[in-house]
Amino acid sequence: MADRYQRGLDILRSLAGEDEPSTIRSLADIAPDLATYTVEFPYGDVYSRPDLTIRQRQMATIGALTALGYALPQLKFHVNGALNIGCTRREIVEAIMHVTSYCGFPAVINALNAAKEVFASREDPEDAGGEDGPADDRSRYDRGWEALARIDGEAGEAVINSLKDIAPDLARYIIEFAFGDLYCRTGLDLRTREIVTIAACVALGSALPQLKVHVHGLLNVGGTREEAVETILQMAVYAGFPAAINGINAAKEVFAARDAEQ
Amino acid sequence: MADRYQRGLDILRSLAGEDEPSTIRSLADIAPDLATYTVEFPYGDVYSRPDLTIRQRQMATIGALTALGYALPQLKFHVNGALNIGCTRREIVEAIMHVTSYCGFPAVINALNAAKEVFASREDPEDAGGEDGPADDRSRYDRGWEALARIDGEAGEAVINSLKDIAPDLARYIIEFAFGDLYCRTGLDLRTREIVTIAACVALGSALPQLKVHVHGLLNVGGTREEAVETILQMAVYAGFPAAINGINAAKEVFAARDAEQ
Amino acid sequence: MADRYQRGLDILRSLAGEDEPSTIRSLADIAPDLATYTVEFPYGDVYSRPDLTIRQRQMATIGALTALGYALPQLKFHVNGALNIGCTRREIVEAIMHVTSYCGFPAVINALNAAKEVFASREDPEDAGGEDGPADDRSRYDRGWEALARIDGEAGEAVINSLKDIAPDLARYIIEFAFGDLYCRTGLDLRTREIVTIAACVALGSALPQLKVHVHGLLNVGGTREEAVETILQMAVYAGFPAAINGINAAKEVFAARDAEQ
Repeated sequence: MADRYQRGLDILRSLAGEDEPSTIRSLADIAPDLATYTVEFPYGDVYSRPDLTIRQRQMATIGALTALGYALPQLKFHVNGALNIGCTRREIVEAIMHVTSYCGFPAVINALNAAKEVFASREDPEDAGGEDGPADDRSRYDRGWEALARIDGEAGEAVINSLKDIAPDLARYIIEFAFGDLYCRTGLDLRTREIVTIAACVALGSALPQLKVHVHGLLNVGGTREEAVETILQMAVYAGFPAAINGINAAKEVFAARDAEQ
Repeated sequence: MADRYQRGLDILRSLAGEDEPSTIRSLADIAPDLATYTVEFPYGDVYSRPDLTIRQRQMATIGALTALGYALPQLKFHVNGALNIGCTRREIVEAIMHVTSYCGFPAVINALNAAKEVFASREDPEDAGGEDGPADDRSRYDRGWEALARIDGEAGEAVINSLKDIAPDLARYIIEFAFGDLYCRTGLDLRTREIVTIAACVALGSALPQLKVHVHGLLNVGGTREEAVETILQMAVYAGFPAAINGINAAKEVFAARDAEQ
Repeated sequence: MADRYQRGLDILRSLAGEDEPSTIRSLADIAPDLATYTVEFPYGDVYSRPDLTIRQRQMATIGALTALGYALPQLKFHVNGALNIGCTRREIVEAIMHVTSYCGFPAVINALNAAKEVFASREDPEDAGGEDGPADDRSRYDRGWEALARIDGEAGEAVINSLKDIAPDLARYIIEFAFGDLYCRTGLDLRTREIVTIAACVALGSALPQLKVHVHGLLNVGGTREEAVETILQMAVYAGFPAAINGINAAKEVFAARDAEQ
């Protein structure tokens, strides 16, 4: 049990960049046991697990905290934490932008403003700028359709088809904006984009059909079932056990469908 | 493509009431591509679509941002935007109050306080006051039951019946408060109230059964299928594609049920 | 009708600890009718109902407002209100900590910081400290498993079993953290913990499977069907009618399953 606390504290310290992290300090007088749990469960249990690197975990956390919308103090902590363990400003900005498709613009804009405050408080030499949209010559639609088919496969195409008779333009925007614009960006690899997507869909709670599509997506771009499960499990920390349990059940259906197909 | 950006910028400028909207400015140094996307997708693609007027779109957006709860900076922008394109303070206050039934009092009270700040910052002569409750002599229950039957029809009556044996008072509060108090208010026509309701239910994500009832509702009070689809599609901007896709699928079921009945 | 307003105002005054509660004051100039509704519906209708004490209602409200994440102004009001009607700081802190399992750490940490501000503004002699983790000699797993089986019964065991082949460690964390750590704490009785849990699951909207488990839970630890229904009904105020209706339908299924089993 002491191991669990110590292991968690080591990880939390490396993220916080200080020996006595402020989260713990601020809980000390009102709920000291929650301070202990915060070290033990999120960090000692979850963050120290294998199958995802700590950088992948930070990307997942940033995607989820963005999607929750109300968790800006925690987002700032984890943006800072991500920088402290070697993620770049560019990766962080890309992860936040990426979830626009899943939670909409308001949550993303507020998250970027929070990240901006963190960036301004630090002296990292790196600049978040230097962005580049897709360099591709194809139309947004052609580029997006190819990306959707490659990433989400049949599950993604089924979504598009289901919209064709009632809201064809919604289907087109998914192809053009979510895939042609966002998924085709550089700055964050596809596997990480799918991990971030899974995290955001689990955190939202009401996006289970889309979660299934993107569990397929992660596996289609070279991710593993373990990575999908770990990402979902981690959301118990940020969005609670119901979100994680419902997410795991969705993943289970995807795995069973893929097993049946082979 | 330049058209899309320019078209979006024109709409955004008319809402913002300034040539270089602050949303764009504040993203310029951290995520310039998201600034571009914000002009192109929400405004160039979605807001410029037909089938809803820009005033109806603002009412839908205000309902959705209120229901999300965490989107107060965006709500302020759109309250200001609604006033800039000719909505009245009264309409804005009515739209926010209306969604109390769908997202509860906390979100609505916080939204009204945000609207109040916007109103205070402006010099429009108009006053938000001059409210009037329903002038009707009937009891809240009688007035509400008649409104529920007229607006939501059989779908609404089925909700009430399903509650009768386990929580009859919840059924009564829906009749008295949601319909007798809120729906019977003047200051916002029924069609707009249903558009606002649909927007809030889609943004919530977990209110799909109620979304179906109110797609029926919109059609029952003279709205069109196109208006229902447009309102749901617009929520891709504010709550993400999963919310919009799940909403469209719910609407599809309603349309199919109505087709089958004819 | 005057009765309804007066009855609500009396309750609201006792919570607010002042004759002219600030919620009402702040709405007076922008939406005076909503000020009236706020007195009438949440307090005159709901809070004055039987089957839950006002202290139980405050615990439910605090759990729900914590889970919503964005409702910190209302949470502060109700933490203050809970203290004004005789709840202890310890009970309030326990109720907030308890919902970590259902909505995750960010919402809980922000809620505790809000509670801390309220505590600091008051001169109650009592201290929130003096916490104690479970004194039990058993391992967290053994203690948690016993608590889970006792509280949630077969419904809880079914959740654990469904996770065993795909995410066994998620099952273990539920046992160890949600039950071994949180449910086994002193400071709040099990019946109140289940009421708080039900409130949080209804407010989340997307936690209906877990809501069912905990309606069983409340009944298993000596709570009544009326208490379950009342807690869910009360959420119409804080999370809207859709959340309450969907919650009632979930409870209905639980009651029917228990009736069938007898």
